[in-house]
Amino acid sequence: MDKPLKLAIAGLGTVGVGVTKIIQNHADLIATRAGRPITITAVNARNRDKDRGVDVSAYQWVDDTAAFADMDDVDVVVELIGGSDGTAYDLAKKALGKGKHFVTANKALLAHHGHELAALAEDNKVNLAYEAAVAGGIPIIKAMREGFAGNAIDAVYGILNGTCNYILTEMRETGRDFKDVLKDAQELGYAEADPTFDVDGVDAGHKICLLTALAFGTKPDFTSLEMTGIRHINATDIAFASELGYRIKLLGIARRMNGKIMQIIEPCLVPKNSTLGTVEGVYNAVHVEGDYVATGHLVGLGAGEGPTASAVMSDIIDIARGYETPAFGIPAKDLQAPKWVNIGETVNCYYIRLNVLDEPGVLAEVSAILRDNKVSIEAFLQRGHDPGQPVPLIMTTHESKHKNITKACAQMENIKSVLEKPCLIPIENIK
Amino acid sequence: MDKPLKLAIAGLGTVGVGVTKIIQNHADLIATRAGRPITITAVNARNRDKDRGVDVSAYQWVDDTAAFADMDDVDVVVELIGGSDGTAYDLAKKALGKGKHFVTANKALLAHHGHELAALAEDNKVNLAYEAAVAGGIPIIKAMREGFAGNAIDAVYGILNGTCNYILTEMRETGRDFKDVLKDAQELGYAEADPTFDVDGVDAGHKICLLTALAFGTKPDFTSLEMTGIRHINATDIAFASELGYRIKLLGIARRMNGKIMQIIEPCLVPKNSTLGTVEGVYNAVHVEGDYVATGHLVGLGAGEGPTASAVMSDIIDIARGYETPAFGIPAKDLQAPKWVNIGETVNCYYIRLNVLDEPGVLAEVSAILRDNKVSIEAFLQRGHDPGQPVPLIMTTHESKHKNITKACAQMENIKSVLEKPCLIPIENIK
Repeated sequence: MDKPLKLAIAGLGTVGVGVTKIIQNHADLIATRAGRPITITAVNARNRDKDRGVDVSAYQWVDDTAAFADMDDVDVVVELIGGSDGTAYDLAKKALGKGKHFVTANKALLAHHGHELAALAEDNKVNLAYEAAVAGGIPIIKAMREGFAGNAIDAVYGILNGTCNYILTEMRETGRDFKDVLKDAQELGYAEADPTFDVDGVDAGHKICLLTALAFGTKPDFTSLEMTGIRHINATDIAFASELGYRIKLLGIARRMNGKIMQIIEPCLVPKNSTLGTVEGVYNAVHVEGDYVATGHLVGLGAGEGPTASAVMSDIIDIARGYETPAFGIPAKDLQAPKWVNIGETVNCYYIRLNVLDEPGVLAEVSAILRDNKVSIEAFLQRGHDPGQPVPLIMTTHESKHKNITKACAQMENIKSVLEKPCLIPIENIK
Repeated sequence: MDKPLKLAIAGLGTVGVGVTKIIQNHADLIATRAGRPITITAVNARNRDKDRGVDVSAYQWVDDTAAFADMDDVDVVVELIGGSDGTAYDLAKKALGKGKHFVTANKALLAHHGHELAALAEDNKVNLAYEAAVAGGIPIIKAMREGFAGNAIDAVYGILNGTCNYILTEMRETGRDFKDVLKDAQELGYAEADPTFDVDGVDAGHKICLLTALAFGTKPDFTSLEMTGIRHINATDIAFASELGYRIKLLGIARRMNGKIMQIIEPCLVPKNSTLGTVEGVYNAVHVEGDYVATGHLVGLGAGEGPTASAVMSDIIDIARGYETPAFGIPAKDLQAPKWVNIGETVNCYYIRLNVLDEPGVLAEVSAILRDNKVSIEAFLQRGHDPGQPVPLIMTTHESKHKNITKACAQMENIKSVLEKPCLIPIENIK
């Protein structure tokens, strides 16, 4: 058996502890699978004295993570700190520059600096690996980089944020509104005290950038990403979507369209019996369309100690086996600057909810605006009748240009009896 | 860029043609992903003159596949002939023995000779790769061998035969019986003229043997496999299963139980909203349970030119990249002889259908037999009432020992008013 692969682990939070447990509990199994033992040389975390439920006393404690890059008995730096810049970024550059493999769960880091770091890894003939950065329990990075490597990828659709999927599922099952369910999710530990990264789509946004790069051989580009979160979705939308045969899911979408690429995060209606429509609660899912494989659909837990640590281990075992794969599937020098689709020119069916005062004439005004903007209505739905009071008015449209429908929504917002900004949600009829 | 990886393709049926198309159509894409061009040196098929819709005139035509093993300008032999023995087996041994990588879609070959061939590959420091052998469009071999490598696997459940899943789905959607739907499936090309391999579970059986080996580090063992197909499932069973909240799926199951392994092919009731329950038509799915990842669930097309060729290409690209992985995830010398669970001692809930004459006293006899065999009934269902005529009597049981329930079924078959062999189907309450 070959000599051990030696790790330094930066960050002993949930995932770092999970990785340590797997290495301790499955030492023999992993050595057999990897062809060599995998051991921990050194660790680092903010607080040395915290009880983490795992014994790290046998490992060298390093106060400054940057020191990992200089240690001769470290082959792989495992970065589980997080954050797009600061310590994680500095560590990545230093470790790769010094010829250490770099394994990370840090989607923000790679969404912002993925191209630079991939190039640095290749220059130093080491791996930059990040299976845990997207949909922890789902081996989607490996599937796209290797499993579907014979395909030109047409599209990737992902439920990439378990917090949002949990909230949307709870809203549907209980009929409660966003704020209520978010509060519960925070108490249960499914959502952070500051939920912005999750519910505004930033976390899913970081992830779709990595999938876009893998799918299309482009440089990860977070700065151009359009993101819409789930704060504007209310219980009425969820209920009407169900009635129409749909579920509302926060999707990351990366799609090839006429030689350009669409990359977006937004809530969408997907058919309730579709593969994505049936993914509920904290589960993540990724749906890939390739020209030969047709569709690949993968489901698993997106976060948590075990699933994320399992993903980190798969990267480490690949390194132990000597696999050398460019981070984004092709050499960094071949990654192209993406040409983005003009979202305004894209065409979709849409769901629209207006909150209107129930009074004569509203429908006529709404209809005229839609007609003037070339938006063709498939169905109008209104439940209840309460003269002079606010009621939801639901519409679904035939295929419409994005710029037309957003213009129509802006105009409808100015109608006197329309009480708030219209809620506009694309309908994605994915199988 | 490195020198090309050179292939010889044995067999130009659906899959061989698909592989040739991908190599021709995606030459640049694949060279970028693989780090080197992938080219075809030689091909072979039964009929040289057949129009296959793809131009193979640039490749050397070889009449005797065995010659591939001796060609200096062949790095990889791609075997797409099929069959557990004969030409395919001879070619595998010769090619591996001569230091050629061997890529195959041949589940029968590996279910019967997997351990021997894996050892031969390792002795000759080449790869034996078979992503296409199980659930073509699903990268399940890679997921289990690499993606979930940090886990001790607890169980694998697979919908592994698209023909059976298509038939069962059609039966449910149309209410028609097995024979009718099979006939249609044969006319549509979804089932062979001789459907035995599919509908009696042999094809799924070959596949589960490979997943068992990967999951538990055991030698593939087809000879010990217990297989039940779907011929005994009728429209009544499908309808009652739906009413009870289930779908009937032909499952391959590999499960660790008290240090032993259960490996079986049988139709099962699975919850209709479960991940496996929602997989319909010709789709395949594999559900994996590991101790850290929790659950991984992968869905895709199980057969057909594109999906299967895509899987073959992923193996070839891995070889081009220089990946070296033992065929079953660990060195062949470390593969253990499996210790099988005694199926009779396993415990499950069951669905039972009796076809009985609707006359007084039947229920009393049935109940007495079940009581005497320690089988506890959860529910009895009978639709319609037609004195003296055959009616289905449906039961579901609480957890019962397999040997007890099979004994009870044998005894019930002897009741005068029970008209045919009872239909016994396990209920698998997979999430």
